[in-house]
Amino acid sequence: MAVYRPPAGRVSNPHVPLGDRRDGAFYGKSIISVRQFARPDLEHVFGVAREMREMVSRIGSFDLLKGKILANLFYEPSTRTASSFTAAMERLGGSVIAINEVRYSSVSKGESLPDTIRTLECYADAIVLRHPQAGAAAQAVEVASKPIINAGDGVGEHPTQALLDLFTIVSELEHVDGLTITMLGDLKFGRTVHSLAKLLSLYNVRLNYVSPEILRMPREIVQELDAHGVHQAEHDRLDDVLGETDVLYVTRVQKERFEDPAEYEGVRGCYVISPETLLGAKDRMIVMHPLPRVGEITMAVDADPRAAYFRQMEYGMFVRMALLALVLGKA
Amino acid sequence: MAVYRPPAGRVSNPHVPLGDRRDGAFYGKSIISVRQFARPDLEHVFGVAREMREMVSRIGSFDLLKGKILANLFYEPSTRTASSFTAAMERLGGSVIAINEVRYSSVSKGESLPDTIRTLECYADAIVLRHPQAGAAAQAVEVASKPIINAGDGVGEHPTQALLDLFTIVSELEHVDGLTITMLGDLKFGRTVHSLAKLLSLYNVRLNYVSPEILRMPREIVQELDAHGVHQAEHDRLDDVLGETDVLYVTRVQKERFEDPAEYEGVRGCYVISPETLLGAKDRMIVMHPLPRVGEITMAVDADPRAAYFRQMEYGMFVRMALLALVLGKA
Amino acid sequence: MAVYRPPAGRVSNPHVPLGDRRDGAFYGKSIISVRQFARPDLEHVFGVAREMREMVSRIGSFDLLKGKILANLFYEPSTRTASSFTAAMERLGGSVIAINEVRYSSVSKGESLPDTIRTLECYADAIVLRHPQAGAAAQAVEVASKPIINAGDGVGEHPTQALLDLFTIVSELEHVDGLTITMLGDLKFGRTVHSLAKLLSLYNVRLNYVSPEILRMPREIVQELDAHGVHQAEHDRLDDVLGETDVLYVTRVQKERFEDPAEYEGVRGCYVISPETLLGAKDRMIVMHPLPRVGEITMAVDADPRAAYFRQMEYGMFVRMALLALVLGKA
Repeated sequence: MAVYRPPAGRVSNPHVPLGDRRDGAFYGKSIISVRQFARPDLEHVFGVAREMREMVSRIGSFDLLKGKILANLFYEPSTRTASSFTAAMERLGGSVIAINEVRYSSVSKGESLPDTIRTLECYADAIVLRHPQAGAAAQAVEVASKPIINAGDGVGEHPTQALLDLFTIVSELEHVDGLTITMLGDLKFGRTVHSLAKLLSLYNVRLNYVSPEILRMPREIVQELDAHGVHQAEHDRLDDVLGETDVLYVTRVQKERFEDPAEYEGVRGCYVISPETLLGAKDRMIVMHPLPRVGEITMAVDADPRAAYFRQMEYGMFVRMALLALVLGKA
Repeated sequence: MAVYRPPAGRVSNPHVPLGDRRDGAFYGKSIISVRQFARPDLEHVFGVAREMREMVSRIGSFDLLKGKILANLFYEPSTRTASSFTAAMERLGGSVIAINEVRYSSVSKGESLPDTIRTLECYADAIVLRHPQAGAAAQAVEVASKPIINAGDGVGEHPTQALLDLFTIVSELEHVDGLTITMLGDLKFGRTVHSLAKLLSLYNVRLNYVSPEILRMPREIVQELDAHGVHQAEHDRLDDVLGETDVLYVTRVQKERFEDPAEYEGVRGCYVISPETLLGAKDRMIVMHPLPRVGEITMAVDADPRAAYFRQMEYGMFVRMALLALVLGKA
Repeated sequence: MAVYRPPAGRVSNPHVPLGDRRDGAFYGKSIISVRQFARPDLEHVFGVAREMREMVSRIGSFDLLKGKILANLFYEPSTRTASSFTAAMERLGGSVIAINEVRYSSVSKGESLPDTIRTLECYADAIVLRHPQAGAAAQAVEVASKPIINAGDGVGEHPTQALLDLFTIVSELEHVDGLTITMLGDLKFGRTVHSLAKLLSLYNVRLNYVSPEILRMPREIVQELDAHGVHQAEHDRLDDVLGETDVLYVTRVQKERFEDPAEYEGVRGCYVISPETLLGAKDRMIVMHPLPRVGEITMAVDADPRAAYFRQMEYGMFVRMALLALVLGKA
């Protein structure tokens, strides 16, 4: 297993390395990076997530984390992620302290992230952290004595998004090995596809990357997956690979990425999924999107059973319920 | 019963039409418009609201909605309404996901209301929606598989306000038929008085409209109530009708409504209720106001037992508890 | 006991004067000022706070306030204080209505504080109020029928901060009588040190004030403590008194307080605590700080067992749990 290494000098940090197969291996640990997860870890998380799904479907909520408090510390807004963690905690019977407007708070008087973390862990049993700077989550783990869950740190990682993406694939298609996964759109700046690609490198999959020339998957990620023996191919046109695709992972191509607006106008149409697009796709495949979408999948696609992006949101809640239960020792 | 008609093409929408007299008729339904409610519907809601009041008075809170999650989705701020729904849900043992600053969230990246609704219903069991645009609530219902409660959509409706206004009248004066209700102030732009007038058209009441010439009750509402046979009369001066008034419903006359500031200064004094004003009122009548007030009822009135506007807030919580319990199938 | 006197004309206000030694003396009372507390009151609060600490350490949370609702009404942001009260309420099984952005709410339409309070008490069982204006909490108490807890009203008071500071001293050093307490930094504008000094006047302590000339403890506070027979001494240099100090209470010296930036640069170094500073301190003493800090205690001090400022945050949660339980009649 690729073990996450905290950046600095504490002798022992109880949170981070997973990889222990026994029950309770996640207890007290922080979730910072997809690199913490080996296949058995993923299987363990997904097994618990499946139980969560079953429980929610049967009884809605239960009291597994009754009396536990989660602090949702968001230095930048993310309604979707914050709501997902809030719902996950509340469906487990726990409570949430929401800190959504950090710019108005003591940090705007200059408080450091470590001080804010050390204060919040006086009140809460775990902290979900969203921060604009890469490395913020690891910095928080350095000082924390309670579990930290990285909910996105700038161009760094957003591991729970990658876990929910993978759980969506497993849940919808029943397995991962053998699948052909096509990632479409902005592969250069999309934190989501980078993390998912890393997780997929633990499986026996084929990856297609379809993007404008200037938004290709970064070389270091391609090389990392090469080293794991993952079959990867770059394409300009979705048509070339759609027919063989089991999972189409769509991301937005943002106008701002292009120096020349004309260049953007020239390519944008190739990255919009409509019901017509899907005529060329398998009957049993899924379309995913991290959301929010702004036109890159038309609303007419929503009624297609292959459109999995709203179900993906729901899988996200189950994965976050699983992670919260695991790090708080109650799974 | 005047049945709410959703604006567009879904074949069957499970949420909206009420009117079924059996228990459980509200289960899974959305609350979008006062037009959904016939008298038996109102009596049913108010019966449950009375039970809620009784329970709160005896034990404060109870676990009727334990494990249920309400999403409070507010595209514009309304502390009063949001707090009322939050308290209602919490007093029923449920939990709340508060989304108060939508401008900072994914929607500011351009996400559509339907996508936000479909995401939130992955997490929550019901959604309270406040939105600046008329028709937003109906648009939400179009895509939602969970109940939507309209908490105000621009110049559209704010049905729970009208329901709480009517419940206040019923609770304070024990009946509605036979009452004389005087609406005072800005009757042109006041969404509150429009919705209340529509609900009152189901009863045998007399309505007085006292307002500046330029802020008269809109013709279409007057005509609609005429068609129901409601006695309506317009007046310039409260003195003309105060003595016969059972319910005085006060709204604010805003300076901005007048082109000529002098015109505003000329009328404003006529629309301020003071203890002296009430010398001419019945002993058994009530003064209502949707709040917030800004001077249109002086604080000296607060001590008068006829001042019902703070009790009105409390009735609002009971009505919202009733609606939440009903649409979630637990009343 | 110095009894708090509400500023205006209500004949009887049930909230404020404490001082009754029987159990239940706090029930229904508001917490507005440190002047409400005599020594037996403090001992009673701290006794309950110790029970809270014990319970949290053993089982995390419990259902003492299940079904109770706290409104957190913050007219100015204070993440730390709001989170502390939220955690306190949630660890007691209660729920919270958070109103954090009052500028966006009905008050920005001009609603008065009394109206907002009277509305919120329709929904909640107690209200925590943070307001930029001195006297706001007392104004709220005037109209409230539910307990108000002052969480800071401008240059007025922040009594729960003073109580938690004193509880920290008692908990860390086991007693207060006989201690030498040194207050360092901005003693002129620091609401925190003013309130703590008043509480300490109930004990037999020695107080040292170390500050720049222009930031001395206000004369009226010095005179008040003189009247109580408290030994007080002013110093320019911490070195003069560090060796005898049992409690070093550090506050920030803000650049903005100085007309001449050069003057600020000349003194700032004297008010920064580093591991070297503490070489001259007793082995058994504590360093406190109300937080947030911005450089006035270096992070290298954090590992010193004498650094009590993060534990201080935790004591704060226990004190607030105790106050909530007491005013809601459940301690």
